[in-house]
Amino acid sequence: MLSQTVVKRLKEIVGEKNVVTDKVGLLTYGYDGTLLSGEALGVVSPTTTDQVVEIVKLMNEHDIKLVPRGAGTNESGGTIPSQEAIVISFTKMTKIHEIDTENFVAVVEPGVINFDLQVELAKQNFYFPPDPSSFKASTIGGNLGECSGGPKCFKYGVTRDYMLGLEVVLPNGKVIQTGGRNFQSEPGYDLTRIIVGSEGILGLVTKVFVRILPIPRAKKTMLALYDKVEDASQTVADIVAAGIIPTTLELMDNLLINTTEDFTHAGLPRDAGAVLIIEVDGYPEDMDEQVKTIGEIASKIAKEFKVAQTAVEVDQIWTSRRSAFGSVARVRPSYGVNDITVPRSNFPKAIGGVLKVAKDFGVTIGVVAHAGDGNLHPLILFDQRNKEETETVHKAEQALCMMALDLEGTISGEHGIGLVKKKYLDKEFTPAAMEAFRKIKRSFDPTNRFNPGKIIDL
Amino acid sequence: MLSQTVVKRLKEIVGEKNVVTDKVGLLTYGYDGTLLSGEALGVVSPTTTDQVVEIVKLMNEHDIKLVPRGAGTNESGGTIPSQEAIVISFTKMTKIHEIDTENFVAVVEPGVINFDLQVELAKQNFYFPPDPSSFKASTIGGNLGECSGGPKCFKYGVTRDYMLGLEVVLPNGKVIQTGGRNFQSEPGYDLTRIIVGSEGILGLVTKVFVRILPIPRAKKTMLALYDKVEDASQTVADIVAAGIIPTTLELMDNLLINTTEDFTHAGLPRDAGAVLIIEVDGYPEDMDEQVKTIGEIASKIAKEFKVAQTAVEVDQIWTSRRSAFGSVARVRPSYGVNDITVPRSNFPKAIGGVLKVAKDFGVTIGVVAHAGDGNLHPLILFDQRNKEETETVHKAEQALCMMALDLEGTISGEHGIGLVKKKYLDKEFTPAAMEAFRKIKRSFDPTNRFNPGKIIDL
Repeated sequence: MLSQTVVKRLKEIVGEKNVVTDKVGLLTYGYDGTLLSGEALGVVSPTTTDQVVEIVKLMNEHDIKLVPRGAGTNESGGTIPSQEAIVISFTKMTKIHEIDTENFVAVVEPGVINFDLQVELAKQNFYFPPDPSSFKASTIGGNLGECSGGPKCFKYGVTRDYMLGLEVVLPNGKVIQTGGRNFQSEPGYDLTRIIVGSEGILGLVTKVFVRILPIPRAKKTMLALYDKVEDASQTVADIVAAGIIPTTLELMDNLLINTTEDFTHAGLPRDAGAVLIIEVDGYPEDMDEQVKTIGEIASKIAKEFKVAQTAVEVDQIWTSRRSAFGSVARVRPSYGVNDITVPRSNFPKAIGGVLKVAKDFGVTIGVVAHAGDGNLHPLILFDQRNKEETETVHKAEQALCMMALDLEGTISGEHGIGLVKKKYLDKEFTPAAMEAFRKIKRSFDPTNRFNPGKIIDL
Repeated sequence: MLSQTVVKRLKEIVGEKNVVTDKVGLLTYGYDGTLLSGEALGVVSPTTTDQVVEIVKLMNEHDIKLVPRGAGTNESGGTIPSQEAIVISFTKMTKIHEIDTENFVAVVEPGVINFDLQVELAKQNFYFPPDPSSFKASTIGGNLGECSGGPKCFKYGVTRDYMLGLEVVLPNGKVIQTGGRNFQSEPGYDLTRIIVGSEGILGLVTKVFVRILPIPRAKKTMLALYDKVEDASQTVADIVAAGIIPTTLELMDNLLINTTEDFTHAGLPRDAGAVLIIEVDGYPEDMDEQVKTIGEIASKIAKEFKVAQTAVEVDQIWTSRRSAFGSVARVRPSYGVNDITVPRSNFPKAIGGVLKVAKDFGVTIGVVAHAGDGNLHPLILFDQRNKEETETVHKAEQALCMMALDLEGTISGEHGIGLVKKKYLDKEFTPAAMEAFRKIKRSFDPTNRFNPGKIIDL
């Protein structure tokens, strides 16, 4: 429990209403997108960088650890207060300082919701490419901490590719500015990108210079339906081999087609083995050619191929895709989102691997995938109240990670490491690399005060 | 001088012909693209990762520092043996292990010359976007160490955006593998990008997984000629404001037009104040529209606008641009290449700033610029044998860096920090950030053995 002295100082720093210490309030901040939970010593919501600095200094004085949190939608346990710690919530730092269309830069506070930024940018015909499925709720700071991806990754890259500069409060209470409004340069070495994806264990980000882009002039959304998942993955390979780089190559299997249909009534045929959502963007003049080529490629294997004709149709398709994670809740009470990536050429093998894991462990798995990136999200459906089943699920999760590594892949695509994947990190990295991780952590945070227990143990 | 014991061991490790200890040989490795020089204790050229490990261990045993070197074309003094050290030359590690077009990946050794990689990739209709002016001589390892840019940066990004994974020999002699064949993920934090741009002070890269892309189907090269440099920079702003992202927006001023004409006879009018080279790529179907829009925008201000009609014309234009640095040698015996970047919206002001520095210090400056990125290369022409003039040039160089910082820019765009810019780094970064740089360096290299004295002093 926090001492009255600390609570009093916190209230002085951020104001009474921005400190939570009651049981119910604390529990609310103990969850994220996983099935894990913890209980914070207290929750504090700063509204300025100076307040963050004061909080960090106070925690240093009283030897209290802290866990940074955005919207808490992450899928890795990254924001769970798994050790005695306060939660520092950034959801009240929501200013969009500036949208600078001349330089393709927006300057925002970490608590700005991805969607809210997109809405403001759209007014000026710009957008921020990283758009994780959680984008209506998740914050830029959270996206940054986990290095989120999203459907547009294949063409446009992940969050780290859109971070130009950061203001960071270090564990010693000092503030640094990395990068800035310049597109190109990170003199010295790349402090910006060592922070991106570090899940708050090296520093607390209080301001973000993000790279924005003009909205492409044209876009086309297509759907291809297949008898089997393996067929869909062949189309992915064929499109890429033809030298086309779509914005999006999203795959859902039969289970997800059915669960999302229950929700959205988008008209996907419930007997299809898989659907591929393909989107291209660019200049109006080249849309027809791209769509024609993709149509020819897909139609060689797909049982149906269609191009969305109206904005409503496009919306329906995306509503299906974006509701995929939540939609499975109707089937079983609990689900675990997995996140593994393999080289694209191994994608069909990875699909096979998922099916094998489902069979070997006797678990139900639905597959959503950013197929262009080789990034799979196998959703394991189960009942968390059943201890034995839950244990089997954890074993299946581990098997999925090992399968990805066997295929020259990685244990995490875009959901971070957090608590959930921590135990597999040394399967991907050698002891020497693990030691490099630890040394960097120690150089920033020698007392292990920032988000302790996430990514690595010291 | 190296002891006979060390020389003998080095020869055992890499073979007699891969160790240089004679005076003339050593001097050859004492230079880079700057006017600085040093003299190595010895030069050793490993051909395998194991040999690199053995060399590092030997240097640790005998407490000898080492300086990694590719082709030595860098413009920052990054490969100068400025302290007592051996040079470890990577020019004999030139294997292209693999070109994996399915996954858009090539796996290469650090000594592969950028151009040689491009030639091999082109056979399979692929390319590696970063293409610094030095690309016919510079190595992938060197490009990586300095985080090189090139004319295509504006649309395609810099070297860090194309590094997927690295094999790195650490100062403790251990080998780590970061990233790999996957496009998306850097679990843990981003070890790949902390190494990119670190100029060999954190580790020695022995294998590189680079991201490659299919060659765009169509490309158009345009030239716009202006009375004044300021006019050209207005066109840059106007093109970007129209939502067009060209591959290239290169600018040369009157001085460079004339010096390159002496060389290339490309037919650029010698009385033009500036030339803008504009290139777009994409699908054949959208080329006409892009060229038309750019032509309309440029023609509002340019005195002449033309579209290259043949491959020969395109070649001529690029030969001019790529020979810019060397071409000034006819005017004065020495030249210093500067490298500063400002937010694109401040580009016209930066051009004004360069003119002011030239006037204030009474020096001759020619300007080449990647105008889309706001990255300027002011070339100061002088005679190094004249001590007083050389001192004035150094003051002018400092003034250029300070001017860039005043315009919210950075002291280095794509040429690194090395020895040349080290003294300005703390003008861009606060003491807390400088300390973060030092701590990371110490965590990798506590005895300061790898490329000591570059980027930061400990």
